[in-house]
Amino acid sequence: MIKFFEYNWQVRDEWFEWCNQLSKEELIKERTGGVRSILYTLFHIIDVEYSWLRGIQGKEDVVVQFADYNTLEKVKSLSDTFRKEIDEFLKLNLDELKKLVSVPWDEDKYSVDEILHHIITHEIHHIGQLSVWARELELNPVSANFIGRKFKPIHTY
Amino acid sequence: MIKFFEYNWQVRDEWFEWCNQLSKEELIKERTGGVRSILYTLFHIIDVEYSWLRGIQGKEDVVVQFADYNTLEKVKSLSDTFRKEIDEFLKLNLDELKKLVSVPWDEDKYSVDEILHHIITHEIHHIGQLSVWARELELNPVSANFIGRKFKPIHTY
Repeated sequence: MIKFFEYNWQVRDEWFEWCNQLSKEELIKERTGGVRSILYTLFHIIDVEYSWLRGIQGKEDVVVQFADYNTLEKVKSLSDTFRKEIDEFLKLNLDELKKLVSVPWDEDKYSVDEILHHIITHEIHHIGQLSVWARELELNPVSANFIGRKFKPIHTY
Repeated sequence: MIKFFEYNWQVRDEWFEWCNQLSKEELIKERTGGVRSILYTLFHIIDVEYSWLRGIQGKEDVVVQFADYNTLEKVKSLSDTFRKEIDEFLKLNLDELKKLVSVPWDEDKYSVDEILHHIITHEIHHIGQLSVWARELELNPVSANFIGRKFKPIHTY
Protein backbone atom coordinates (compact mmCIF):
# COMPACT_ATOMS: atom_id res chain seq x y z
CA MET A 1 0.00 0.00 0.00
CA ILE A 2 2.85 2.35 0.87
CA LYS A 3 4.23 2.13 -2.67
CA PHE A 4 1.07 3.81 -3.94
CA PHE A 5 1.59 6.70 -1.51
CA GLU A 6 5.20 7.00 -2.67
CA TYR A 7 3.94 7.12 -6.25
CA ASN A 8 1.24 9.68 -5.48
CA TRP A 9 3.58 11.92 -3.52
CA GLN A 10 6.23 11.85 -6.21
CA VAL A 11 3.74 12.53 -9.01
CA ARG A 12 2.16 15.30 -6.91
CA ASP A 13 5.51 17.01 -6.46
CA GLU A 14 6.14 16.77 -10.21
CA TRP A 15 2.80 18.51 -10.80
CA PHE A 16 3.79 21.25 -8.34
CA GLU A 17 6.98 21.69 -10.36
CA TRP A 18 4.98 21.62 -13.61
CA CYS A 19 2.66 24.34 -12.27
CA ASN A 20 5.55 26.80 -12.06
CA GLN A 21 5.20 27.47 -15.78
CA LEU A 22 1.59 28.69 -15.35
CA SER A 23 0.38 32.14 -14.36
CA LYS A 24 -1.70 32.55 -11.22
CA GLU A 25 -4.73 33.16 -13.46
CA GLU A 26 -4.27 29.84 -15.29
CA LEU A 27 -3.76 28.01 -11.97
CA ILE A 28 -7.05 29.18 -10.49
CA LYS A 29 -9.08 29.36 -13.72
CA GLU A 30 -12.31 27.34 -13.46
CA ARG A 31 -12.24 24.43 -15.94
CA THR A 32 -14.71 21.83 -17.16
CA GLY A 33 -14.63 18.47 -15.34
CA GLY A 34 -12.74 17.63 -12.21
CA VAL A 35 -12.77 20.02 -9.27
CA ARG A 36 -12.76 23.70 -10.23
CA SER A 37 -9.15 24.54 -11.16
CA ILE A 38 -5.67 23.07 -11.39
CA LEU A 39 -4.62 24.58 -8.06
CA TYR A 40 -7.88 23.65 -6.35
CA THR A 41 -7.42 20.04 -7.50
CA LEU A 42 -4.04 19.83 -5.77
CA PHE A 43 -5.48 21.50 -2.65
CA HIS A 44 -8.43 19.08 -2.66
CA ILE A 45 -6.18 16.00 -2.96
CA ILE A 46 -4.10 17.16 0.00
CA ASP A 47 -7.15 18.09 2.10
CA VAL A 48 -8.89 14.75 1.48
CA GLU A 49 -5.78 12.68 2.23
CA TYR A 50 -5.11 14.56 5.46
CA SER A 51 -8.74 14.49 6.66
CA TRP A 52 -9.09 10.75 6.19
CA LEU A 53 -5.72 10.00 7.76
CA ARG A 54 -6.62 12.10 10.81
CA GLY A 55 -10.01 10.36 10.87
CA ILE A 56 -8.31 6.96 10.96
CA GLN A 57 -6.35 8.11 13.98
CA GLY A 58 -9.46 9.35 15.78
CA LYS A 59 -8.18 12.93 15.59
CA GLU A 60 -10.48 15.91 15.09
CA ASP A 61 -10.89 17.09 11.48
CA VAL A 62 -8.87 20.15 10.55
CA VAL A 63 -10.89 22.25 8.11
CA VAL A 64 -8.76 24.20 5.63
CA GLN A 65 -10.21 26.83 3.32
CA PHE A 66 -8.90 27.27 -0.20
CA ALA A 67 -9.19 31.06 0.23
CA ASP A 68 -6.30 30.81 2.71
CA TYR A 69 -4.14 28.70 0.35
CA ASN A 70 -4.79 30.19 -3.07
CA THR A 71 -1.22 30.35 -4.36
CA LEU A 72 1.03 27.59 -5.64
CA GLU A 73 3.54 28.21 -2.84
CA LYS A 74 0.90 27.97 -0.13
CA VAL A 75 -0.61 24.75 -1.48
CA LYS A 76 2.84 23.17 -1.87
CA SER A 77 3.72 24.22 1.67
CA LEU A 78 0.44 22.75 2.97
CA SER A 79 1.24 19.47 1.22
CA ASP A 80 4.73 19.39 2.76
CA THR A 81 3.43 20.19 6.24
CA PHE A 82 0.66 17.59 6.17
CA ARG A 83 2.93 14.89 4.79
CA LYS A 84 5.45 15.41 7.60
CA GLU A 85 2.63 14.69 10.05
CA ILE A 86 1.18 11.64 8.30
CA ASP A 87 4.23 9.75 7.10
CA GLU A 88 4.92 8.22 10.52
CA PHE A 89 1.34 7.04 10.78
CA LEU A 90 1.44 5.32 7.41
CA LYS A 91 3.72 2.64 8.86
CA LEU A 92 0.70 0.63 9.96
CA ASN A 93 0.65 -2.98 10.94
CA LEU A 94 -1.78 -5.25 9.16
CA ASP A 95 -4.06 -5.79 12.18
CA GLU A 96 -5.00 -2.14 12.22
CA LEU A 97 -6.19 -2.31 8.62
CA LYS A 98 -9.35 -4.14 9.70
CA LYS A 99 -10.33 -1.53 12.32
CA LEU A 100 -13.60 0.28 11.57
CA VAL A 101 -13.50 4.07 11.57
CA SER A 102 -16.17 6.80 11.90
CA VAL A 103 -15.53 10.29 10.56
CA PRO A 104 -17.57 13.45 11.11
CA TRP A 105 -18.38 13.99 7.40
CA ASP A 106 -19.82 10.53 6.65
CA GLU A 107 -22.57 8.47 8.31
CA ASP A 108 -21.04 5.10 7.46
CA LYS A 109 -18.13 3.29 9.04
CA TYR A 110 -15.23 2.16 6.89
CA SER A 111 -12.21 -0.06 7.53
CA VAL A 112 -8.77 1.54 7.61
CA ASP A 113 -7.90 -0.65 4.63
CA GLU A 114 -10.85 0.69 2.63
CA ILE A 115 -9.98 4.29 3.51
CA LEU A 116 -6.35 3.86 2.43
CA HIS A 117 -7.54 2.44 -0.90
CA HIS A 118 -9.90 5.41 -1.21
CA ILE A 119 -7.17 8.00 -0.58
CA ILE A 120 -4.90 6.34 -3.16
CA THR A 121 -7.48 6.04 -5.95
CA HIS A 122 -8.80 9.54 -5.21
CA GLU A 123 -5.45 11.18 -5.93
CA ILE A 124 -4.70 9.15 -9.08
CA HIS A 125 -8.18 9.93 -10.44
CA HIS A 126 -7.81 13.69 -9.97
CA ILE A 127 -4.30 13.67 -11.42
CA GLY A 128 -5.77 12.03 -14.52
CA GLN A 129 -8.05 15.06 -14.82
CA LEU A 130 -5.08 17.43 -14.58
CA SER A 131 -3.48 15.59 -17.49
CA VAL A 132 -6.42 16.47 -19.77
CA TRP A 133 -6.31 20.12 -18.69
CA ALA A 134 -2.58 20.18 -19.42
CA ARG A 135 -3.20 19.07 -23.02
CA GLU A 136 -5.94 21.67 -23.35
CA LEU A 137 -3.23 24.21 -22.44
CA GLU A 138 -1.05 22.59 -25.14
CA LEU A 139 1.44 21.44 -22.51
CA ASN A 140 2.82 17.96 -21.87
CA PRO A 141 1.41 16.53 -18.64
CA VAL A 142 3.58 14.93 -15.97
CA SER A 143 4.12 11.24 -16.70
CA ALA A 144 1.67 8.95 -14.91
CA ASN A 145 3.85 5.87 -15.36
CA PHE A 146 4.43 3.82 -12.24
CA ILE A 147 7.12 1.62 -13.74
CA GLY A 148 10.58 2.98 -14.20
CA ARG A 149 10.40 5.40 -11.25
CA LYS A 150 12.75 5.42 -8.29
CA PHE A 151 10.69 6.23 -5.23
CA LYS A 152 11.72 8.23 -2.18
CA PRO A 153 10.58 6.44 1.00
CA ILE A 154 7.66 8.36 2.52
CA HIS A 155 9.46 8.94 5.83
CA THR A 156 12.02 11.09 3.98
CA TYR A 157 9.38 13.66 3.01
CA MET B 1 -3.63 -5.46 -4.39
CA ILE B 2 -6.63 -7.48 -5.54
CA LYS B 3 -9.03 -4.90 -4.09
CA PHE B 4 -7.70 -2.36 -6.58
CA PHE B 5 -8.45 -4.73 -9.46
CA GLU B 6 -11.96 -5.28 -8.09
CA TYR B 7 -12.38 -1.50 -7.97
CA ASN B 8 -11.02 -0.98 -11.48
CA TRP B 9 -13.13 -3.75 -12.98
CA GLN B 10 -16.30 -2.50 -11.33
CA VAL B 11 -15.68 1.12 -12.36
CA ARG B 12 -14.78 -0.05 -15.89
CA ASP B 13 -18.09 -1.91 -16.21
CA GLU B 14 -19.96 1.17 -14.98
CA TRP B 15 -18.23 3.19 -17.73
CA PHE B 16 -19.28 0.58 -20.30
CA GLU B 17 -22.85 1.01 -19.04
CA TRP B 18 -22.46 4.81 -19.12
CA CYS B 19 -21.25 4.64 -22.74
CA ASN B 20 -24.60 3.21 -23.85
CA GLN B 21 -26.06 6.72 -23.86
CA LEU B 22 -23.50 7.93 -26.44
CA SER B 23 -23.64 7.61 -30.21
CA LYS B 24 -20.92 5.71 -32.03
CA GLU B 25 -19.60 9.07 -33.31
CA GLU B 26 -19.23 10.46 -29.77
CA LEU B 27 -17.56 7.23 -28.60
CA ILE B 28 -14.83 7.36 -31.23
CA LYS B 29 -14.53 11.15 -31.54
CA GLU B 30 -10.93 12.31 -31.04
CA ARG B 31 -10.67 14.47 -27.88
CA THR B 32 -8.00 16.63 -26.27
CA GLY B 33 -5.89 14.95 -23.56
CA GLY B 34 -5.84 11.27 -22.73
CA VAL B 35 -5.71 8.69 -25.49
CA ARG B 36 -7.70 9.56 -28.61
CA SER B 37 -11.36 8.82 -27.75
CA ILE B 38 -13.62 7.49 -25.02
CA LEU B 39 -13.84 4.06 -26.63
CA TYR B 40 -10.13 3.93 -27.41
CA THR B 41 -9.36 4.74 -23.76
CA LEU B 42 -11.31 1.69 -22.61
CA PHE B 43 -9.67 -0.45 -25.30
CA HIS B 44 -6.23 0.83 -24.27
CA ILE B 45 -6.80 0.07 -20.56
CA ILE B 46 -7.85 -3.50 -21.39
CA ASP B 47 -4.96 -4.03 -23.83
CA VAL B 48 -2.32 -2.74 -21.38
CA GLU B 49 -3.65 -4.80 -18.47
CA TYR B 50 -3.75 -7.97 -20.54
CA SER B 51 -0.34 -7.46 -22.14
CA TRP B 52 1.42 -6.90 -18.81
CA LEU B 53 -0.37 -9.81 -17.17
CA ARG B 54 0.63 -12.13 -20.00
CA GLY B 55 4.15 -10.71 -19.77
CA ILE B 56 4.32 -11.59 -16.08
CA GLN B 57 3.39 -15.16 -16.94
CA GLY B 58 6.08 -15.38 -19.63
CA LYS B 59 3.41 -15.73 -22.31
CA GLU B 60 3.74 -14.26 -25.79
CA ASP B 61 2.15 -10.84 -26.28
CA VAL B 62 -1.19 -10.85 -28.08
CA VAL B 63 -1.42 -7.75 -30.25
CA VAL B 64 -4.96 -6.44 -30.66
CA GLN B 65 -5.87 -3.70 -33.13
CA PHE B 66 -8.49 -1.10 -32.32
CA ALA B 67 -9.74 -1.32 -35.91
CA ASP B 68 -11.00 -4.81 -35.05
CA TYR B 69 -12.76 -3.67 -31.85
CA ASN B 70 -14.22 -0.30 -32.76
CA THR B 71 -17.68 -0.70 -31.24
CA LEU B 72 -18.77 -0.58 -27.62
CA GLU B 73 -20.00 -4.17 -27.75
CA LYS B 74 -16.71 -5.46 -29.13
CA VAL B 75 -14.57 -3.62 -26.54
CA LYS B 76 -16.83 -4.79 -23.69
CA SER B 77 -16.62 -8.33 -25.00
CA LEU B 78 -12.82 -8.09 -25.23
CA SER B 79 -12.70 -6.91 -21.63
CA ASP B 80 -14.88 -9.82 -20.48
CA THR B 81 -12.84 -12.37 -22.41
CA PHE B 82 -9.48 -11.11 -21.14
CA ARG B 83 -10.68 -10.90 -17.55
CA LYS B 84 -11.83 -14.52 -17.61
CA GLU B 85 -8.29 -15.49 -18.56
CA ILE B 86 -6.47 -13.31 -16.02
CA ASP B 87 -8.56 -13.57 -12.87
CA GLU B 88 -7.13 -16.97 -11.92
CA PHE B 89 -3.62 -15.67 -12.33
CA LEU B 90 -4.24 -12.70 -10.07
CA LYS B 91 -4.31 -15.02 -7.05
CA LEU B 92 -0.56 -14.72 -6.67
CA ASN B 93 1.45 -15.61 -3.63
CA LEU B 94 3.73 -12.97 -2.19
CA ASP B 95 6.97 -14.68 -3.21
CA GLU B 96 6.13 -14.26 -6.87
CA LEU B 97 5.77 -10.50 -6.46
CA LYS B 98 9.55 -10.11 -6.29
CA LYS B 99 10.21 -12.02 -9.51
CA LEU B 100 11.76 -9.90 -12.28
CA VAL B 101 10.03 -9.90 -15.64
CA SER B 102 11.10 -8.99 -19.19
CA VAL B 103 8.54 -8.01 -21.79
CA PRO B 104 9.01 -7.57 -25.55
CA TRP B 105 7.96 -3.88 -25.59
CA ASP B 106 10.38 -2.63 -22.91
CA GLU B 107 14.15 -2.92 -22.47
CA ASP B 108 14.07 -2.86 -18.67
CA LYS B 109 13.12 -5.59 -16.23
CA TYR B 110 10.43 -4.96 -13.65
CA SER B 111 9.22 -6.88 -10.61
CA VAL B 112 5.77 -8.44 -10.71
CA ASP B 113 4.85 -6.16 -7.80
CA GLU B 114 5.87 -3.05 -9.75
CA ILE B 115 3.93 -4.19 -12.83
CA LEU B 116 0.76 -4.83 -10.81
CA HIS B 117 1.05 -1.32 -9.34
CA HIS B 118 1.53 0.02 -12.85
CA ILE B 119 -1.57 -1.71 -14.24
CA ILE B 120 -3.68 -0.41 -11.36
CA THR B 121 -2.55 3.23 -11.52
CA HIS B 122 -2.72 3.18 -15.34
CA GLU B 123 -6.43 2.38 -15.36
CA ILE B 124 -7.38 4.85 -12.61
CA HIS B 125 -5.45 7.60 -14.39
CA HIS B 126 -7.21 7.07 -17.72
CA ILE B 127 -10.62 6.82 -16.04
CA GLY B 128 -9.91 10.24 -14.51
CA GLN B 129 -9.51 11.54 -18.06
CA LEU B 130 -12.87 10.04 -19.09
CA SER B 131 -14.50 11.95 -16.22
CA VAL B 132 -13.38 15.29 -17.70
CA TRP B 133 -14.64 14.32 -21.16
CA ALA B 134 -17.99 13.32 -19.59
CA ARG B 135 -18.40 16.82 -18.13
CA GLU B 136 -17.45 18.34 -21.47
CA LEU B 137 -20.40 16.37 -22.86
CA GLU B 138 -22.49 17.82 -20.02
CA LEU B 139 -22.99 14.36 -18.55
CA ASN B 140 -22.32 13.13 -15.01
CA PRO B 141 -19.30 10.84 -14.93
CA VAL B 142 -19.30 7.47 -13.18
CA SER B 143 -18.40 7.85 -9.50
CA ALA B 144 -14.73 7.30 -8.75
CA ASN B 145 -15.32 6.69 -5.04
CA PHE B 146 -13.67 3.63 -3.60
CA ILE B 147 -15.47 3.75 -0.27
CA GLY B 148 -19.06 2.67 -0.05
CA ARG B 149 -18.80 0.15 -2.90
CA LYS B 150 -19.54 -3.56 -2.59
CA PHE B 151 -17.05 -5.39 -4.73
CA LYS B 152 -17.57 -8.55 -6.74
CA PRO B 153 -14.63 -10.93 -6.23
CA ILE B 154 -12.52 -10.99 -9.39
CA HIS B 155 -12.92 -14.75 -9.87
CA THR B 156 -16.67 -14.20 -10.44
CA TYR B 157 -16.05 -12.13 -13.58
